Amino acid sequence: MPNLDLFFNPRAIAVVGASRTPGKIGYTILENLKMTYKGKIYPINLEATEIMGLNAYPSVLNIEEPVDLAVIAVPAEKVKYVVLECIKKKIKACCIISSGFSEIGQKEREIELQKISKGKIDIIGPNCLGVYSKNLDMLFLSRDRFKRPSEGNISFISQSGAVGSALIDMIGFEGIGISRFISYGNALDIGEIELIDYLGKDTGTRAIAMYIENIKDGLEFIKVASKVSKIKPLVALKAGKTKKGQEACMSHTGALAGPANVYSSAFKQAGVIEAKTSEELFDMAKSLAYQPIMADNKIAVITDGGGFGVLAADAAVEFGLELPALTPESLKPLRSAMPAHGITANPVDVTGDASDERFKRVLDIVFRDRNISGVIAIVLPQIPALTEGIVDILRDCKLYGKPYVVCMSGGAWTQEKARKLESFGVPVYPTPERAAKALAALYEYGKIVKGK
Amino acid sequence: MPNLDLFFNPRAIAVVGASRTPGKIGYTILENLKMTYKGKIYPINLEATEIMGLNAYPSVLNIEEPVDLAVIAVPAEKVKYVVLECIKKKIKACCIISSGFSEIGQKEREIELQKISKGKIDIIGPNCLGVYSKNLDMLFLSRDRFKRPSEGNISFISQSGAVGSALIDMIGFEGIGISRFISYGNALDIGEIELIDYLGKDTGTRAIAMYIENIKDGLEFIKVASKVSKIKPLVALKAGKTKKGQEACMSHTGALAGPANVYSSAFKQAGVIEAKTSEELFDMAKSLAYQPIMADNKIAVITDGGGFGVLAADAAVEFGLELPALTPESLKPLRSAMPAHGITANPVDVTGDASDERFKRVLDIVFRDRNISGVIAIVLPQIPALTEGIVDILRDCKLYGKPYVVCMSGGAWTQEKARKLESFGVPVYPTPERAAKALAALYEYGKIVKGK
Repeated sequence: MPNLDLFFNPRAIAVVGASRTPGKIGYTILENLKMTYKGKIYPINLEATEIMGLNAYPSVLNIEEPVDLAVIAVPAEKVKYVVLECIKKKIKACCIISSGFSEIGQKEREIELQKISKGKIDIIGPNCLGVYSKNLDMLFLSRDRFKRPSEGNISFISQSGAVGSALIDMIGFEGIGISRFISYGNALDIGEIELIDYLGKDTGTRAIAMYIENIKDGLEFIKVASKVSKIKPLVALKAGKTKKGQEACMSHTGALAGPANVYSSAFKQAGVIEAKTSEELFDMAKSLAYQPIMADNKIAVITDGGGFGVLAADAAVEFGLELPALTPESLKPLRSAMPAHGITANPVDVTGDASDERFKRVLDIVFRDRNISGVIAIVLPQIPALTEGIVDILRDCKLYGKPYVVCMSGGAWTQEKARKLESFGVPVYPTPERAAKALAALYEYGKIVKGK
Repeated sequence: MPNLDLFFNPRAIAVVGASRTPGKIGYTILENLKMTYKGKIYPINLEATEIMGLNAYPSVLNIEEPVDLAVIAVPAEKVKYVVLECIKKKIKACCIISSGFSEIGQKEREIELQKISKGKIDIIGPNCLGVYSKNLDMLFLSRDRFKRPSEGNISFISQSGAVGSALIDMIGFEGIGISRFISYGNALDIGEIELIDYLGKDTGTRAIAMYIENIKDGLEFIKVASKVSKIKPLVALKAGKTKKGQEACMSHTGALAGPANVYSSAFKQAGVIEAKTSEELFDMAKSLAYQPIMADNKIAVITDGGGFGVLAADAAVEFGLELPALTPESLKPLRSAMPAHGITANPVDVTGDASDERFKRVLDIVFRDRNISGVIAIVLPQIPALTEGIVDILRDCKLYGKPYVVCMSGGAWTQEKARKLESFGVPVYPTPERAAKALAALYEYGKIVKGK
C-alpha cells in the first residue's frame, strides 16, 4: 500500500496552475491552502514571480527545497508533462484536479499517466477535488458558499466531487465535524481500497463514509474492507444501481458501474454497512462515528410527543430493533417521575408539559435499565417548560456509556438546539424514522464486529 | 356532514379557560388568537373581569352577543359542564384542547360528551391543538419557539399534535406555506372523514396531508376520500404499522390502530397516496400542492454535479419514472449551449462550471422537449459561476407548465436560496432521492385522477 500520509501531512506543497485571478480554480486552491496549511507552499505559474505574497516558480524543478505533494490544476493535455517534472523533482504524491480524462472518453490519457507514474509517484484523481482536512484544504470551493465543518471523527471518501462537497457543506451547517475528506474522481491510481486502508489506521477517523460508483478490484476491496470494518465502521452508498444510473456513471467518472446486487453482497461480505440514499449515508456516518456499538437490539424510545413515539417505534421495529418493557425496578421511580398522564410503557411518553427536570429523571431511569441497550430520545425542545438546559442534559447522557441518538424536529429555534447538541458529539436527526435508522446502524455494526 | 366553516370563519370566539398567567395554555391560546383573529374574542375565566385588554366573563352564558366557536382548555373533569353551557348558548362548534380522556383510559368521558353533544354542537378534540390558519391561530405553542408558516396551499390534518406542530414549524422554516392545519386528537366527533370532506371544498387547499393513527369508519373514509382525491391530492402517513407502534397509539390517542396492510389497501382504493415516513409526507405534500399533475412518467434530470445526477436517476427509476433520450431536435441546441465536457444524455450534466445563462438555456431546451413531461433540476448554487439570478431562472420555469422539483444540497448559503425559491412556490429538496420521490408523487397522482 502507498504511503498516503504525504497527502495529509506533506512537509511542503507545490500548486501547479496557481492563478492570480480570483474565481479561477488555481486561485481558490491556493487561497484555501494558504488559509489552512502551516507548511511551505510553492505556487507554480509560468508568468508570475509572486502570488498572494508567495514566491512563484515556472516549474517544480525550479524549487530548491524538497516538496512532498503537488496539486495539479492545469489543462488535461499538460498534466502529463507536469507529472513528469514532479517525478524528476522526486515529489512522491500528487492530486490531479484537472478534468478532461476518461469521463470525456480520453481514457488513453489516464493509461499514459499510469505508465509514467507507476512506482514513482502516487496519484489521487484526475477529475476530482483532492483532499481536505482542517489543516490542509485544497478544495476549489469558495468558503463564502461552502462552509467547512469543524474537526471531527467522520472521514468521507467520494468518487463524486459534487456529492462530497455538498455533504461537507451540510455537515458544516450541522454541528458534527469531519476528520478527512477525499474526492478521488476517476481513480487512475489511488482509489477506495488504498483510502480505506489508510483511514483504517488514521486515529482521527472513527467512521468511514463512502460514495462509490464502481470498485475496480472487488476481491481486494473485500479483503481490505473486511480488515478495517473490524476496527471501525464503514458505510457506503453505491451509485449507479439502475441501468440508467450506470449509464450516468459512465459519463461522470468514466467508470463501468456493476450491478447493485453484486455490490450489496460484496459490502455484506466485507462488513460494510450499505446506505440506500445519500441521506442515510450521512445519517448513519454520524451515529457510527460518535456513538458506541449497541450490545443487542433492545432499545427504549423516550418522547415528549406521542405521535413521534409511535413513528419511532414503527421505524425501529422495521429496522430490526425491539422495544422491551422496562424492568419492574424502573417502573416505580418512572411512575413517580411523571404525572398521571405520562406513559411508562416503551415508548416512554413524558408528554408535552415535561420540564428539564422530568426529562432528566426519566432519561436517568431508562439509561440505567438493564433491559435497555440503546435509546432514541425524541425531544421537541419547543415545548414550554423546557429550557436551554435540555441540551446539556442530553449531552451528559454520554456518561451512561450506552449508544443513543436524538430526534429534534422543527424550525430555526429547534435547529439551533440541535446544532449545539451535535457540537458536543451527539447525533441529532429531524425525524424519528431517521433517528431510528441511525441507531439501528449501531446494532448492525455490533453484529459485524462480533462476526455475526 | 357538519358545517366546519364555523371552525375557520367564526363570527366570534369564546376561550374557556383563558388565563392571565404567561406560559399557561389558556394564556398562549388567547395571545395567539388575539394576534391573528379579526373578530370578537371573549375570554372566559371565573375570576378575571379583563384579560389582555379584553372583557372576560365567568361563563359563555354571560356573553350577550352570539358566539360561533368555543375553544375549551379546562381540566378534563370540567369539560362536560362547559360543553353543556356552550349548547345552552347555542354555540355550534368547539375545540376541546384539554387532555385526560381515552388516551389515559377515560373513555367514558368521551362517550358522555358524545351523548351530550350529538346534533347540538360539533367537536374537534379532545387532547388536541385545535385549528390553525393565518387568520385564526389557537395553537398553544409559543411563537418564539414554533414559527408559523406563510399562507400557502398545503392543508394538514393530524391526530398527533406534536407531529403536526413540529411539521408546521418545519414548514415555517422552509419557504412553502400552508392553508389550514387541524390537530384533532382523540376525534370523539369530527375526524379525518369530515375534515377531508371540508378541505376538499376549501379553495385555499390544493393538497391535503394527513397523519393518521386510526380510521373509525373505513368504508365512509374510502367513500369520501375517493371523491376528494379526484379533485385534489391526498397524502397520508399511517402511524402504528407495527404491533409495537399500535400499542403506542393506544396510549397516545386511545385509538386501536389497525394492521398496516388494511390501511394501505384502503388508501389505494380511495386514491390516497401513502407516505412511508414523516419526511415523505412533508416532501410529497409540497410537490402535490404546488405542481401540476405529470402527464406520464417521462422525466429529465438536469444537474450541475454528476454524482447527484446518478443518484437522481437511480431513485427516479426505482420510483417508476423513466429518463428517455431527448428528441433529436433538442440535442443540437443543447450541445451548443454547453462546453465539450457537458453531457447531453439524460441526466443532462451542465457541470460544475455552469453559469446562470448556461442553466437557463439548457432548462429551456429540456422543458420544451416533447419527450419530457417533468423535470428534476439539481442545482448546487454554490458553484462559482452561478449568481442569485439562478433562483429567478428556476422560478420562471413555472411558465413551461410542466411539473418540476429542485434539489439544492448544502449549508446555510444554499438553504437561503432554497427558501427563497420555495417562497415562490417551487418545491426544493436537500437530496436527489427526496426530489425524485416528490416528482414521482405527481405521476402517481396523475394516475389516480385518470382512474388508472
